[in-house]
Amino acid sequence: MARIVMKFGGTSVADLDRIRNVANRVKREVEAGNQVAVVVSAMSGVTNQLVKWCQDLSPLHDAREYDTVVATGEQVTIGLLAIALQTIGVDARSWQGWQIPIRTDNAHGKARVEEIEGDTLIARMTAGQVPVVAGFQGVGPDNRVTTLGRGGSDLSAVALAAAVKADRCDIYTDVDGIYTTDPRIVPRARKLQAVAYEEMLELASVGAKVLQTRSVELAMKQRVRVQVLSSFEDKPGSLVVDEDEIVEQPLVTGVAYSRDEAKVTLRRVPDKPGIAALVFGPLSAANVNVDMIVQNLGADGTTDMTFTVSRTDLPRAKDVLEKSHSEIGFEALLADPDVAKISIVGIGMRSHAGVAATMFKSLAEKGINIQVISTSEIKTSVLVGAEYTELAVRALHSAYGLDSEG
Amino acid sequence: MARIVMKFGGTSVADLDRIRNVANRVKREVEAGNQVAVVVSAMSGVTNQLVKWCQDLSPLHDAREYDTVVATGEQVTIGLLAIALQTIGVDARSWQGWQIPIRTDNAHGKARVEEIEGDTLIARMTAGQVPVVAGFQGVGPDNRVTTLGRGGSDLSAVALAAAVKADRCDIYTDVDGIYTTDPRIVPRARKLQAVAYEEMLELASVGAKVLQTRSVELAMKQRVRVQVLSSFEDKPGSLVVDEDEIVEQPLVTGVAYSRDEAKVTLRRVPDKPGIAALVFGPLSAANVNVDMIVQNLGADGTTDMTFTVSRTDLPRAKDVLEKSHSEIGFEALLADPDVAKISIVGIGMRSHAGVAATMFKSLAEKGINIQVISTSEIKTSVLVGAEYTELAVRALHSAYGLDSEG
Repeated sequence: MARIVMKFGGTSVADLDRIRNVANRVKREVEAGNQVAVVVSAMSGVTNQLVKWCQDLSPLHDAREYDTVVATGEQVTIGLLAIALQTIGVDARSWQGWQIPIRTDNAHGKARVEEIEGDTLIARMTAGQVPVVAGFQGVGPDNRVTTLGRGGSDLSAVALAAAVKADRCDIYTDVDGIYTTDPRIVPRARKLQAVAYEEMLELASVGAKVLQTRSVELAMKQRVRVQVLSSFEDKPGSLVVDEDEIVEQPLVTGVAYSRDEAKVTLRRVPDKPGIAALVFGPLSAANVNVDMIVQNLGADGTTDMTFTVSRTDLPRAKDVLEKSHSEIGFEALLADPDVAKISIVGIGMRSHAGVAATMFKSLAEKGINIQVISTSEIKTSVLVGAEYTELAVRALHSAYGLDSEG
Repeated sequence: MARIVMKFGGTSVADLDRIRNVANRVKREVEAGNQVAVVVSAMSGVTNQLVKWCQDLSPLHDAREYDTVVATGEQVTIGLLAIALQTIGVDARSWQGWQIPIRTDNAHGKARVEEIEGDTLIARMTAGQVPVVAGFQGVGPDNRVTTLGRGGSDLSAVALAAAVKADRCDIYTDVDGIYTTDPRIVPRARKLQAVAYEEMLELASVGAKVLQTRSVELAMKQRVRVQVLSSFEDKPGSLVVDEDEIVEQPLVTGVAYSRDEAKVTLRRVPDKPGIAALVFGPLSAANVNVDMIVQNLGADGTTDMTFTVSRTDLPRAKDVLEKSHSEIGFEALLADPDVAKISIVGIGMRSHAGVAATMFKSLAEKGINIQVISTSEIKTSVLVGAEYTELAVRALHSAYGLDSEG
């Protein structure tokens, strides 16, 4: 007997047939003797329609009313799934955020879950009833419906799993697990049996979009075991768990890439104390996230500063820096949007030296120039010309022995 | 300065343009210096889609889950209307049933409003904010969303008007008021300035479908002044008020008709104590509503009993009576679905004798045979052959001086 939270996204509940399919999956878990709670998103397309209505009425609409409108999508799905479950003999009851309650802060449209009252749901589950919970929503301190932002249903599921002390949170999605890299680039990419929380976070931050980053952070903090699996096929997925659970830890778990990068270089900036603050302060104030940063000291008391921003932020970044030209005092601003970030991620890197050296060597052998390097404890990222993305990913996937044998 | 509840039905909020139109109407009331609360239905068509989904999943769906699903229609409208109001500079805030709360009993799908907490809304209105309230819904004793049944938004509006001590409840609809009779039958029908609650109830019970009967009952009980007016034209409608408010009271206020009638006659029923219970007990048990009843005593210890049921109930009524044949002991059962009920309604009938005599005389002059007569304090109804419906309505409308001069 296990206690499981099952989460189904919008494509899994897109119409009545798929809702019936979800009900059958839930029934199988119940019949296997498990205690089950379900978290669902809105039927796919519904949320977009609701968002569009709000935007058509006013681009600057009140976030509280926006939340009132868009939260209805999940409310419809929980009622329909509860009916579908009851119809096949599974005791079920729907729950909106305010009914549980799922308490959040007041940040409408992107609220944070603060507390979930789990006792009632645990009692229902213990008595054999399946709670069907609306994802993506909660209730704020002033008794107003809040939403958690796009992809927030993953977050709802993980938070609920923590609140009901579930053994596992199963996230059903349109991919069947987490891969060593993007299978569209490397057909021999392998599905991972298990990934550590920290690895998943690093992978998510560099482009592997399987799980929403905030939900992984929460799972790590609350030690919720997460499984990513397909809602259309019937086979095990990939576990996201504490590293202690992963018996055989490879040096590198996965290779990720991000094309949403742009490189900015400021030439011959005066090398004086406080210069970094002069550069990055205004960017931060303009909500431009800066990622990789390198600084090369010149001989003449100036320095070249290079850093990356997301490609969509590049125009804003240039604008902000041009306005600060006289204060910063750079000689030239060079911007290059044709770059990509390639990353290797693995808990094993923590205890093994020389892992990054293999990366640099493999890329050099393929004639790929590395423009910027940044490292964290379990990740090494390099910036390369965008046209080398696939070549670099494939080279690294082979170099670290990740190719499947099949 | 007045405090007004404005209610808009589904066709008045069918799309974003109509929602903007409603917002402008509300703004005009606010700018006239009034305190305003708004009650809205779901965008037309939405509730039908939601109901269909529930029925497709299971014809015998759980009423609690049905309520969870269908209540979303109104939730979308209140959020959108609040945004539309804010966009044109009107301070507004949406309210779902559970947020106010509008407390109901536990009869999901057709719940009764038990209590509405009005203080918070009054405070908001006094401070110049417009509450936009979801019609048709409330919250039950177990914290579950309830719905009031079809047409329940009228009821929501009247109950809310009572709770916030409103001076008037304006029901915006697709007709522009209450008429002396159906203008499709009598083009010279006149719009009434004012109708008494009791008259409206009698008119509603005999086919004038402008206001839901339960909402009129509630308005009468709570002394809520109701106005019925058009959401598409800008002119005063008809008031439904206490009879004391109506200065010039005509003898007859309106002529109504109902084609949803069927006549049943039991021939030669033994005339003994308890025979009525033997006939009407089983009908009541089978949920067949019996309306007009007459009994003609024969000379031979038997009696002919005639009564009407709604036309849709006729097959069931016949079935029930045939099954009780041996107990009741009638000689023959005659059923006639080709009848119509014509009614004259007016508070003035209470204090004036001879009003009904005019009715009988007018119908006789047109050669219309009266099959059954029933009277109440302010209404006289006759059953006639269905083919005489229009002729009878026109004759009575003229006879009581209701034709307009135009």
